[in-house]
Amino acid sequence: MMGVVPRTSLSHLECSVANTVDIVRDSWTVLILRDALQGIRRFDQFVESLAIARNTLASRLERLVETGLMTAQPYQDNPVRYEYRLTDKGKDLFDVLMTLWSYGERWNPPNSPDRQRAIHIDCGHEADTVAHCGHCGGRVTRRNIRIEPPNEVIARSEAVTGTASLSD
Amino acid sequence: MMGVVPRTSLSHLECSVANTVDIVRDSWTVLILRDALQGIRRFDQFVESLAIARNTLASRLERLVETGLMTAQPYQDNPVRYEYRLTDKGKDLFDVLMTLWSYGERWNPPNSPDRQRAIHIDCGHEADTVAHCGHCGGRVTRRNIRIEPPNEVIARSEAVTGTASLSD
Repeated sequence: MMGVVPRTSLSHLECSVANTVDIVRDSWTVLILRDALQGIRRFDQFVESLAIARNTLASRLERLVETGLMTAQPYQDNPVRYEYRLTDKGKDLFDVLMTLWSYGERWNPPNSPDRQRAIHIDCGHEADTVAHCGHCGGRVTRRNIRIEPPNEVIARSEAVTGTASLSD
Repeated sequence: MMGVVPRTSLSHLECSVANTVDIVRDSWTVLILRDALQGIRRFDQFVESLAIARNTLASRLERLVETGLMTAQPYQDNPVRYEYRLTDKGKDLFDVLMTLWSYGERWNPPNSPDRQRAIHIDCGHEADTVAHCGHCGGRVTRRNIRIEPPNEVIARSEAVTGTASLSD
């Protein structure tokens, strides 16, 4: 049983990161999104792919529909059965999931030699995904990102170093 | 109180994404990492910046040290006080946090007009971060990423479309 902290508990922080983590904080949800991006749509397909308990899957799919990441569309009557498809908001998590994946490959790689790999078709190599600026296309790093306005605690602190980019 | 699901419950899936989500699933942890990237190091600075309860902060910092994302270094004796600094593994979460941030800005923006923005110093614009291939530098999208080996459920399914990239 996973605990859920009410979103309001962090609302005073006004942080987009926290808002998004509300979505991907649940490991099952991330695995469902991963499978959905690979084309899985039907309840029983998710059950088979993930070896997930049906009630666990049902609760996660319900949350994904509630948060606007998926839609449920009936494809069969009597009994009614649904396909779960990613919305634009759900598909847009692709970049987040790819950077999560690449980070995991670097620091927490699975032991299995036959694990799935993400191949960048354009160059034929495994995509070790990194973050680039959507405006100019250049790489973003801790060295070339400036937070505005700066954190108040840092701004006041004796530890201020005078550098404009993020910390060492 | 946040629930924690034992990592072994997902270990059969051998997925780097799930491994990494184990780290960033906790909203407070993400906010601590965000502040650490901005240069916050001392316990009382985190308390002030996040308005976080001291016992909550202590448990999160302890976990960050255990998982190798931060180190605790004493900077004062009697009473002993520690600075918490990001390790290379912790700093490398930058790309993940930036794509999370940008996704949140697009889909779950905070209401506050004076919220923090991430400026890409090189071009001067707000960094709407996207994922690029670390090998060739090109953009990665659902259209130019191929998963190898493909998901077994999809490979067998009647729903196979014959496309090599990820789903619509």
